[in-house]
Amino acid sequence: MSKVTCDMGVSVDGYVAGLGQSLDTPFGEGVGDRLHEWMFQQPEENAEVITEITNAGAFIMGRNMFGPDRGDWDLDWTGWWGEEPPYHAPVFVLAHRPRESFALKGGTTFHFVTGGIEDALARAREAAGERSVSIAGGAHTVNQYMAAGLIDELRLHVAPVVLGRGERLFEGVGDVSLEQVSVQSTSLVTHVTYRPAR
Amino acid sequence: MSKVTCDMGVSVDGYVAGLGQSLDTPFGEGVGDRLHEWMFQQPEENAEVITEITNAGAFIMGRNMFGPDRGDWDLDWTGWWGEEPPYHAPVFVLAHRPRESFALKGGTTFHFVTGGIEDALARAREAAGERSVSIAGGAHTVNQYMAAGLIDELRLHVAPVVLGRGERLFEGVGDVSLEQVSVQSTSLVTHVTYRPAR
Repeated sequence: MSKVTCDMGVSVDGYVAGLGQSLDTPFGEGVGDRLHEWMFQQPEENAEVITEITNAGAFIMGRNMFGPDRGDWDLDWTGWWGEEPPYHAPVFVLAHRPRESFALKGGTTFHFVTGGIEDALARAREAAGERSVSIAGGAHTVNQYMAAGLIDELRLHVAPVVLGRGERLFEGVGDVSLEQVSVQSTSLVTHVTYRPAR
Repeated sequence: MSKVTCDMGVSVDGYVAGLGQSLDTPFGEGVGDRLHEWMFQQPEENAEVITEITNAGAFIMGRNMFGPDRGDWDLDWTGWWGEEPPYHAPVFVLAHRPRESFALKGGTTFHFVTGGIEDALARAREAAGERSVSIAGGAHTVNQYMAAGLIDELRLHVAPVVLGRGERLFEGVGDVSLEQVSVQSTSLVTHVTYRPAR
């Protein structure tokens, strides 16, 4: 069965995004690219890690990660990632309201799942086949999957940044135990892989 | 002038202790040695780091780290560490009420400073001479020094443990920037050294 992975860029104080997320500030006010400078400033040193992040057969994300709008769907909004998103695979968006699936260039198809996290995972596993399923974010979605014991590999990318407030990883996950699997680093990031268990 | 260092054992979700700290549970209820298993289970693999933690010419700690009592001093209480504490140097305890200094075996002398964090640091620097001054904890004390821009080297020892609640490092430190200096690990801990600046 597919391995379930999760890659999260996180500040040293445990936030994956700040407050005030909006169209202009997808990672929250004042955050910008601060959590991901290692990707943009050190793409070569981090090439293997970056490749691995998008190397999944299917992705799952919360609605807040798909877009800034709330309530009824704005059907003109097709995600943050432009005409050719970096997923190149089916992406299952957790939603309260149904919406038709649609495909963009490069093999990314967005599906909208109203049946909850286990339903989304079942569909993503089926789509991924032998490949892994990645829980793409945001914090609330990852925390739900972690609380349910459904993540096999949690890969944190810890940036040397203090955000002070925002959306916290691990909030409300309960009694999760972690095994530390591997650690590597460049000057702008510490990559730590954990195996969570309940 | 002395370098100011700080070593903190921290959970992956950013806590240095749980809630309900008391005589029987110095790290909070249910925490025990969970944040420090790497010290007890892997003393040889982590020998260099462990040596460095107590290799300072003077230490500073908050009153909560010195003992569980509050209010007037219990003069029978001489710290958690028994007759020969691991500091082997002067230790300056931040306090609201004055108390006479006293010495224990092995060169540890506890001094009680009511003049605030800068006064304590001035006295610790004077005592340390060329050697470094270590801010020993707890979270509130470290956060105060970090907020004031007074820590030169923050050495986090991140355990693969989710505590879920407790005393958080970085809380209220404001706009601190961090430079990541070094990373090393054993299977039970990730050691990351940061250089904070304001």
